[in-house]
Amino acid sequence: MRPVVGKLAIIGQGLIGSSITRAVYERKLARETVITDADPKVRKRLLELGLGEARVVKTAAEAASGADMVIGCVPVRSYRDVVAEIAPVLKPGAILSDVGSVKQGIVLECLPLVPEGVHFVPAHPLAGTEFSGPDAGLPRLFVNRWCILTPPEGVGGDAIATARTFWEGLGSKVEVMSPARHDTALAITSHVPHLAAFSIFHTALAQEEEDHSPVIQFSAGAFKDFTRIASSNPVMWRDIFLMNREPVLKALRNFITDMEACARAIEAGDGDTLEKLFSVSRSTRRKVIEKEHISQQPDESADALKDTLFRPYSQGD
Amino acid sequence: MRPVVGKLAIIGQGLIGSSITRAVYERKLARETVITDADPKVRKRLLELGLGEARVVKTAAEAASGADMVIGCVPVRSYRDVVAEIAPVLKPGAILSDVGSVKQGIVLECLPLVPEGVHFVPAHPLAGTEFSGPDAGLPRLFVNRWCILTPPEGVGGDAIATARTFWEGLGSKVEVMSPARHDTALAITSHVPHLAAFSIFHTALAQEEEDHSPVIQFSAGAFKDFTRIASSNPVMWRDIFLMNREPVLKALRNFITDMEACARAIEAGDGDTLEKLFSVSRSTRRKVIEKEHISQQPDESADALKDTLFRPYSQGD
Repeated sequence: MRPVVGKLAIIGQGLIGSSITRAVYERKLARETVITDADPKVRKRLLELGLGEARVVKTAAEAASGADMVIGCVPVRSYRDVVAEIAPVLKPGAILSDVGSVKQGIVLECLPLVPEGVHFVPAHPLAGTEFSGPDAGLPRLFVNRWCILTPPEGVGGDAIATARTFWEGLGSKVEVMSPARHDTALAITSHVPHLAAFSIFHTALAQEEEDHSPVIQFSAGAFKDFTRIASSNPVMWRDIFLMNREPVLKALRNFITDMEACARAIEAGDGDTLEKLFSVSRSTRRKVIEKEHISQQPDESADALKDTLFRPYSQGD
Repeated sequence: MRPVVGKLAIIGQGLIGSSITRAVYERKLARETVITDADPKVRKRLLELGLGEARVVKTAAEAASGADMVIGCVPVRSYRDVVAEIAPVLKPGAILSDVGSVKQGIVLECLPLVPEGVHFVPAHPLAGTEFSGPDAGLPRLFVNRWCILTPPEGVGGDAIATARTFWEGLGSKVEVMSPARHDTALAITSHVPHLAAFSIFHTALAQEEEDHSPVIQFSAGAFKDFTRIASSNPVMWRDIFLMNREPVLKALRNFITDMEACARAIEAGDGDTLEKLFSVSRSTRRKVIEKEHISQQPDESADALKDTLFRPYSQGD
């Protein structure tokens, strides 16, 4: 494959950063790759690992200097400081990108710091595992996964096209959307599930304390799958919730409202409503797994649930 | 392995029933096995499959006649009718058992129908996949999984011991507890997670309708794992919620209360509370995966969360 960029800088070599490094090497997407991490122990590990031909440097500014594309792979609350540090050394025409799980917050904090002539194309690869650090990276982490690009208004089409080609080069499918739409979608497909998975342990532990006997021990595959994401990094997720506050609160409010409607159906012994909800959910999920796409069959669409006890769809918020 | 029972009857040959049939054959746990299913198509399939040396008969009464142990593996709402049908032909000293996901409801409906001299030892193997039918059964489904026995007051120790030996023979770890304690534990570790997984599709579909654009499509491993159990049988789950109503409503109330406390922490920008919750959840889960057992470390116990914003543990309900 022909290189997509000349000099690529990747700032941060955790799971995502080191996966990009490995993938770029495997697919020869850049002519030159420079990597760094704020943690000296990680930099030491990078030298031991020898990730392709990537050159390890000490600071973000060193890495970003003269780079054609810079990808920040740092905690969501660290982007502002990183951009402030590298802004003076970014060359005109460079593409500045990231992999953060929230987009409006990062755009808000970083866009004012981006120098004239530098193209800011924020990104979010929808990929990951519950592991962290430079050893955890996988070259195929992004294959067949979505990568969302959220360029602010005014960013040039060429820069967006280059970012698209880069992520497609990593094996991803690319979608361009506004930061607001990204944050709304991820709030319900990722952030609320993580919160529920974390929170249910608290609920179960409280039940154990109330009963003075084990509860969590008597769980099986269902609980294990539902809570797999509760093995994720607590600090990372704390920051995601704090930075994606409004969309998360809205999605959480909707999720709770719908769960309360389930409670009313159970209380009323309304088996029909429950069965209908469960059937639509199951068929929706089967479409997602098989095609990663929702096709709106008339009898399986959201319309089918409109006249149930649940929150009306079309109400403004 | 020496047979645990002489004649074993298994009524119902879905995922669980046909797994027991296969496992019993593999491990020679019964001298004679007779199986049946209410669905003639299933009975036909059983003859095609030839599950070990199990004899296929047409009715539950035929199967249960003269059996030393009878295990019902039918939908939770069907147990009453099955027990009513077989009660006249159960021999004195026989052990009557089940595999239903709720216990108080089944005991309430069936115990009055159990003849004098027949030992009623309800069971619930905490095992399963999202698939169904006689082809889906697996002989090792129960290995290293918990099986909970909930014998009512007065059931003889010998019968409980035989049931225990039988399930241990299938590879399970066995725990005896009251039907009430079972239903409370399963409400939070299984029933509420299933409800949340089903319900979140509704919430996401509503967001798609509000935005006029896809949402669920932009999900990754997190959503897939969280919602795996939404591929489960809608009718089966409708009945479980209707039969385990009070414990589910209580667990759901607690779950929602705790999620609302998360919302308040996010709203207040209280990163410390969030991080502490997530850390305890992650370490609790790690213990569950590694040991399937909660060990109460002082700094990771439920006590650590007592003084947070959450629902007080020790309040009576």
